[in-house]
Amino acid sequence: MKNFEALKHHLGQVSDLGGAASVLSWEQETYMPAKGAEHRADQMATLSLIHHQMATDPKIGVWLEELKPLEGEDTFEGAFVRVARRNYERETKFPAEFVEETSRAQNAAHHAWLEARKHSDFKHFEPHLEKMFELARRAADYLGFEDHPYDALLDLYEPGAKTAHIKSIFADLRDQTLPLLKAIQAKVAASGDVADYSLLSRKFPLEGQKTFGLKVAQRFGLEPEFARQDVSAHPFCTNFGYNDIRITTRFDEHFFPTSLFGTWHETGHGMYEHGVNPQYNRTPLAGGTSLGVHESQSRLFENLVGRSKAFWEFHFEDFKATFPEPMNGVTLDEFYKAINRVQADLIRVEADEVTYNFHVMLRFEIEVGLLEGSIQVKDLPEIWNAKMQDYLGVVPPSDALGVLQDVHWSAGLIGYFATYSLGNLLSVQLYNAAQLELGNLHDQYRKGELAPTVEWMRKNVHQHGSRYLPHEIAQMATGKPLGAADYVKYLKEKYSEIYGLEGI
Amino acid sequence: MKNFEALKHHLGQVSDLGGAASVLSWEQETYMPAKGAEHRADQMATLSLIHHQMATDPKIGVWLEELKPLEGEDTFEGAFVRVARRNYERETKFPAEFVEETSRAQNAAHHAWLEARKHSDFKHFEPHLEKMFELARRAADYLGFEDHPYDALLDLYEPGAKTAHIKSIFADLRDQTLPLLKAIQAKVAASGDVADYSLLSRKFPLEGQKTFGLKVAQRFGLEPEFARQDVSAHPFCTNFGYNDIRITTRFDEHFFPTSLFGTWHETGHGMYEHGVNPQYNRTPLAGGTSLGVHESQSRLFENLVGRSKAFWEFHFEDFKATFPEPMNGVTLDEFYKAINRVQADLIRVEADEVTYNFHVMLRFEIEVGLLEGSIQVKDLPEIWNAKMQDYLGVVPPSDALGVLQDVHWSAGLIGYFATYSLGNLLSVQLYNAAQLELGNLHDQYRKGELAPTVEWMRKNVHQHGSRYLPHEIAQMATGKPLGAADYVKYLKEKYSEIYGLEGI
Repeated sequence: MKNFEALKHHLGQVSDLGGAASVLSWEQETYMPAKGAEHRADQMATLSLIHHQMATDPKIGVWLEELKPLEGEDTFEGAFVRVARRNYERETKFPAEFVEETSRAQNAAHHAWLEARKHSDFKHFEPHLEKMFELARRAADYLGFEDHPYDALLDLYEPGAKTAHIKSIFADLRDQTLPLLKAIQAKVAASGDVADYSLLSRKFPLEGQKTFGLKVAQRFGLEPEFARQDVSAHPFCTNFGYNDIRITTRFDEHFFPTSLFGTWHETGHGMYEHGVNPQYNRTPLAGGTSLGVHESQSRLFENLVGRSKAFWEFHFEDFKATFPEPMNGVTLDEFYKAINRVQADLIRVEADEVTYNFHVMLRFEIEVGLLEGSIQVKDLPEIWNAKMQDYLGVVPPSDALGVLQDVHWSAGLIGYFATYSLGNLLSVQLYNAAQLELGNLHDQYRKGELAPTVEWMRKNVHQHGSRYLPHEIAQMATGKPLGAADYVKYLKEKYSEIYGLEGI
Repeated sequence: MKNFEALKHHLGQVSDLGGAASVLSWEQETYMPAKGAEHRADQMATLSLIHHQMATDPKIGVWLEELKPLEGEDTFEGAFVRVARRNYERETKFPAEFVEETSRAQNAAHHAWLEARKHSDFKHFEPHLEKMFELARRAADYLGFEDHPYDALLDLYEPGAKTAHIKSIFADLRDQTLPLLKAIQAKVAASGDVADYSLLSRKFPLEGQKTFGLKVAQRFGLEPEFARQDVSAHPFCTNFGYNDIRITTRFDEHFFPTSLFGTWHETGHGMYEHGVNPQYNRTPLAGGTSLGVHESQSRLFENLVGRSKAFWEFHFEDFKATFPEPMNGVTLDEFYKAINRVQADLIRVEADEVTYNFHVMLRFEIEVGLLEGSIQVKDLPEIWNAKMQDYLGVVPPSDALGVLQDVHWSAGLIGYFATYSLGNLLSVQLYNAAQLELGNLHDQYRKGELAPTVEWMRKNVHQHGSRYLPHEIAQMATGKPLGAADYVKYLKEKYSEIYGLEGI
């Protein structure tokens, strides 16, 4: 155990450096004066360098070798050593020159993307995107894989996930929700809108948005003694320890869903991090196990709870009292339908529950194709637009609103998009498992009782931190592997009711 | 020059770590949720450890030895090497066990002091204070000194300053301002108050305090693109680079001077750091050269400008318009006299310009006496109260309001207090030198022109950062060594006028 304590002490310091870097990063997005950027870049580069040096210190390899016998155990120590090895191997697999080359290429690609999007000029971004996918292929080779190079990249964000499995889940999802979407579109074309959507863009004073959003966040368990909300251009959640959770949002006086559902989305991420077993503090087991499982929690709070009729049956009167003017004369039914509008549109981050996954599947298919070599970067605008037409029936009028809309590829984040949809699917699978144990959850939401749902998630998901792999969490918590069935059923029931569809 | 570049690169990283630690520290005082304290303590301890390791890396000693020939030069490189050597020697002079012992003792002393002050129980703090002064004596021995052990401690905060010189300056200051204070007290006893001081504690809405304070701060040059103000329990100024300045303040709706003059005080500190030559960024020459020179800038902005009649001749109408209710019927003359009230009282941080230095001298005399052994810790309450009676004519009703009022000793900050008064003295000496060159400054303030004063300070003080020692700055900028004469003259003229004294 002497080696274990030495490893734990060392990785505790690595964790501290990571936390410090996160504070600097959070502060940069929330409060830093503009001209501070130059200093902050220096400080973060130095922290990152020292973090990398400490995380790849060869003595970690020596300790891990000596601690190998622990790896088979389902104990704290066993999981610690397993995850520590995974992290160490990842950090040490890339040669320093490759890391340097990637960092320079990402920087150039990001600037090129900003320019390209501004002028809707894909050609300007094209060579950089070529470079990003070339680097991704080389990264996959360094990381190693058995079946598919994409597995190696996926593993960075969703450890243990396999391309083949995701392809099969996504095929189910596509085949079963495309008819739903088409039926909704047909119904609206025939009978018109089911609600007055203009109510969403009335003037909702910011103070009320903030107060109401945080009141519900607190009902989810997000307490000011360990968490706070600030404003940033792009909403995110970060943390500097399980008892220092930060969420950010942006406010739009003329579109309250941005801040309201955004706040509950980030609250889901935050409660996951807060709920991790305190014993895991400053260890590799701290923090959520993957982006997909993280997203299951944010989407649960945002959609399964926050966009449910039952939730609003409890909260509607308070919401109306907070915003008497814009909500004057609005009924619960109309409000519920408005916040659940299904509309095939161009932009992923603004998509509803039904169309969102099509945006993700499109990107996943393109990434896999590019990595396999069955798709060429130069053809992307055309491929993108064709897939948009197939799935959503809309075609972007410009590449800025199409293939250039997301930041991810310019930042080298390849293998990332799928996790958004995995999170959606898992959110419903977890919800259903919770309901089996806790009884009808909508009945609880109708009484304002959100805590039992959150406590169930804490017990079955949050507390484990990174101790188990995502597919282990799915199996342990829901009794089956992750699949599309639960999510499809959820969508069909909810939206058949909203749009008055039959036989779906 | 290869060695110089290597040293510069290394110390650039040391500077980055210091900046990162300052961000964490600032955030802890401004936004961090209460329960984040545990994580933050870990993160700061690790940053501090790595900072210490890097700042005491033996290769620095090797580089410095090789660069010794540069030290005599009055060039960037010469100053760089001189200051780098001073920092390196300081960091390496204390044995690790001594640093550890000190850190533990300070922690215990701080908690004991909090308890002792709460219950006004000096006995509870006494053994800890004994320990703090024992450690201070040992620190002086490690640091080394020629004339007086106190010189070694002083040098930590005011490099190059000497106890004998300060004793002589303080003797002048005491002998010449005590009669002024007694004359003011006699006059008030005979003729009553010269203004209605109750106006200070009327209700001044916080929003107005903030807006007005920052408007003037901006006139001093503090621009939002490189600086911001936040709220903290104890006001301070910090920075993470010359273009990332942070000031904090606290607001009291029923005592506006706290935020108003506090904001301008911190603005003085901030403009000093912002004005340092950008070439010194990430080098040992970045940042102000000493606490005393720093305080000269904060007191200049707060008092010489902010509490001058000329300043208010320009700003008074705007102030009245900002606070129409509490300022209803108040004249400029009455307002000016109210914000310059002289009142011998118990608490240093609330003291006016005339009495402030007595609070400092008392502490300086006690520190020197304790270090020399001519005073015993157990006698402090008695000695403190006797000196308060001698200087200010008031005796604390409790030790909490007397010897236990300041945090400094409990934090091991011994040799620090004198810098407050050195700053006061230097502020007037610099002001007079600026006026010789720029013409009547009050005429400028009457027109709202604060920039020429600030620009003069930038040229003669700020830009040099830590390149020159405090006594070199005084000599270069004012043409003479630091002394009490200018300050005494300033006090006599200003307060004779306010209190209608003759023959002072």
